[in-house]
Amino acid sequence: MASPNRIPEIRKDTVNNRWVIFSPARSRRPSDFKSKSNPVNPTSQPECPFCIGQEHDCAPEIFRVPAAGPDWRIRVVQNLYPALSRDLESSGELAGRPGGGSVALSGFGFHDVVIESPVHPVHLPDLDPVEIGDVFMAYKKRIEQLQCYDSIQYVQVFKNHGASAGASMSHSHSQMIALPVVPPTVSTRLDSMKEYFGQTGKCSLCEIRFDTLLIDESIHFISISPFAATFPFEIWIIPRYHSSHFHELDGVKAIDLGRLLKLTLRKMNVQLNSPPFNFMIQGSPLQVSPTQLPYTHWFLQIVPQLSVVGGFEMGTGCYINPVFPEDAAKLLREVSIS
Amino acid sequence: MASPNRIPEIRKDTVNNRWVIFSPARSRRPSDFKSKSNPVNPTSQPECPFCIGQEHDCAPEIFRVPAAGPDWRIRVVQNLYPALSRDLESSGELAGRPGGGSVALSGFGFHDVVIESPVHPVHLPDLDPVEIGDVFMAYKKRIEQLQCYDSIQYVQVFKNHGASAGASMSHSHSQMIALPVVPPTVSTRLDSMKEYFGQTGKCSLCEIRFDTLLIDESIHFISISPFAATFPFEIWIIPRYHSSHFHELDGVKAIDLGRLLKLTLRKMNVQLNSPPFNFMIQGSPLQVSPTQLPYTHWFLQIVPQLSVVGGFEMGTGCYINPVFPEDAAKLLREVSIS
Ligand SMILES: Nc1ncnc2c1ncn2[C@@H]1O[C@H](COP(=O)(O)OP(=O)(O)O[C@H]2O[C@H](CO)[C@@H](O)[C@H](O)[C@H]2O)[C@@H](O)[C@H]1O
Ligand SMILES: Nc1ncnc2c1ncn2[C@@H]1O[C@H](COP(=O)(O)OP(=O)(O)O[C@H]2O[C@H](CO)[C@@H](O)[C@H](O)[C@H]2O)[C@@H](O)[C@H]1O
Repeated sequence: MASPNRIPEIRKDTVNNRWVIFSPARSRRPSDFKSKSNPVNPTSQPECPFCIGQEHDCAPEIFRVPAAGPDWRIRVVQNLYPALSRDLESSGELAGRPGGGSVALSGFGFHDVVIESPVHPVHLPDLDPVEIGDVFMAYKKRIEQLQCYDSIQYVQVFKNHGASAGASMSHSHSQMIALPVVPPTVSTRLDSMKEYFGQTGKCSLCEIRFDTLLIDESIHFISISPFAATFPFEIWIIPRYHSSHFHELDGVKAIDLGRLLKLTLRKMNVQLNSPPFNFMIQGSPLQVSPTQLPYTHWFLQIVPQLSVVGGFEMGTGCYINPVFPEDAAKLLREVSIS
Repeated sequence: MASPNRIPEIRKDTVNNRWVIFSPARSRRPSDFKSKSNPVNPTSQPECPFCIGQEHDCAPEIFRVPAAGPDWRIRVVQNLYPALSRDLESSGELAGRPGGGSVALSGFGFHDVVIESPVHPVHLPDLDPVEIGDVFMAYKKRIEQLQCYDSIQYVQVFKNHGASAGASMSHSHSQMIALPVVPPTVSTRLDSMKEYFGQTGKCSLCEIRFDTLLIDESIHFISISPFAATFPFEIWIIPRYHSSHFHELDGVKAIDLGRLLKLTLRKMNVQLNSPPFNFMIQGSPLQVSPTQLPYTHWFLQIVPQLSVVGGFEMGTGCYINPVFPEDAAKLLREVSIS
């Protein structure tokens, strides 16, 4: 798969400010554990609360697309087991905690599910670009609603597909969690991009060099293997236009992104045998200051789940990637899609 | 398991400077994927290169305990599929890279395996405290050797036990990776502990408040559920004496730590049904300056693998933990070990 004779290299992801170890030798190590079989997604599920006709088993709806009528294509609903609660005071620090520098906040926030299709066996890459564009426009609409809460600082949009990517539900869906804090990866990325801007006067994602790392391009987006990919076959879809926030997307760009995401997921399925995967919209805090605008730039990170994280990664925050990104990009660039 | 009526809370881990969301409601969510069965560790393995008598199938030995003779109890060997290479120049930055702020270093470093027992079915908690102490003294000896390389900045000691904790080999072992960079979690922790020291004049781990978070204590160590545990049932074993580096451990303390680790792993096995787990020694860069000594303090982090990381955690670096640490501590404190 990777070039086995390459020597290891340590690369810095200058966008996220982390080190990644590239070590092709690692891909040849044996295992004496029996291989895990991926649980197959059930094709239909009589009890699935995300299926059309089962709306009564679902937590309350926030909106649907189209906006009225029983024949919905997308539903945005509350998560029935939310990580954060919309019913709490967003009052900040809790008192009476064990001290010693410890800090605790009220668990105020929003946790929603975006049901991407009314029927069980249809997954995101089965939709056409316009329909995937509609899912993006649903994210955008919900982010704009969440933006009205003063205490919400960041909205994480993400998708888990397949059990080993964390999914507990097999019906095609994504999730949105609105947080009253700016999460650590976001503030670290902001600091790195600011530093690059300070040195060069430019946005590091507008300037990203991709030569051998390019996978595909569309009118408004490129898909690449990032130079210091944390995970094997990790892919970034980056807008070619400078934009801090995903929700600046318009309908035309949403369809263009839908087309590129569909192509990317189909290529991943062919090349990597339909792996479980996650995608994450990597954006900026809702309130960015005018001085931050020139160096903040959102992108979509796609991570096929091909390896298990071990103690080294948990301990150090450094990842070991057995596949050089230029090799992954070449394979994904050249895979042919019928 | 956790108190299901508690409301969610966001806590800050002030040692590692990260936010964790505590949400007991999450533990009740259903799943329509079939549950994964943990592959059972084979009790004997005719081809295992880590077994006594199979030394010829192993990468070169660095040292054994006892130091000579065929009847070894512990072997420290090179990793046959190393993430980093001891044969490269430690010459720093590589030239001719795609630019755009990208940085790449030569993959110089060391990657060793510590074989903790000569026979296949024996695992760490099966050893007696003196024998576990010997494993710690082997880590110490190897760290002291690695310290002689000027360009090595940090040594990560870690253990993967069980396939879903990342292990590819079932024979009881741990690993050590010596890095030419200070990894991100270590520098973030250093910054946080420095900040606390700046505000209070004290080491945050010497001062850690544990009241309801205490699990057990020995002469030289305590085991606790950290106030903002990233993972359910995560445990920290912290030296009661102030010490920047694990390898300051002496033989007496090593046995005391062996006893507490054995107790902790046995409790985890009883309470959590012998889960896969990782442990990591969380320490300081090899070269700490005299000004850093007062606020750097190593500890052993133990993480049972009970959940899968999803897109939210990958995207934000924030974790969702369904079990409040005070509930985990109470269960682990009270579990009785025969
Ligand atoms: N009837 C109903 N109505 C409305 N909502 C319902 C529902 N029944 C179930 N749900 C919700 O549907 C969601 C499905 O989400 P996913 O399958 O993407 O993963 P989940 O959030 O369970 O956990 C994964 O993702 C999270 C976040 O990354 C990780 O913390 C976790 O470890 C990983 O397994 C769940 O959050 C669940 O609470
Ligand atoms: N004959 C032999 N002689 C010497 N060494 C031999 C050998 N045969 C195998 N080895 C080595 O033994 C080690 C066993 O290590 P573990 O089982 O703890 O997990 P591994 O390192 O494979 O990967 C886990 O841990 C790493 C680090 O956390 C993660 O990157 C990864 O995803 C996860 O699966 C492997 O590193 C392997 O290279």
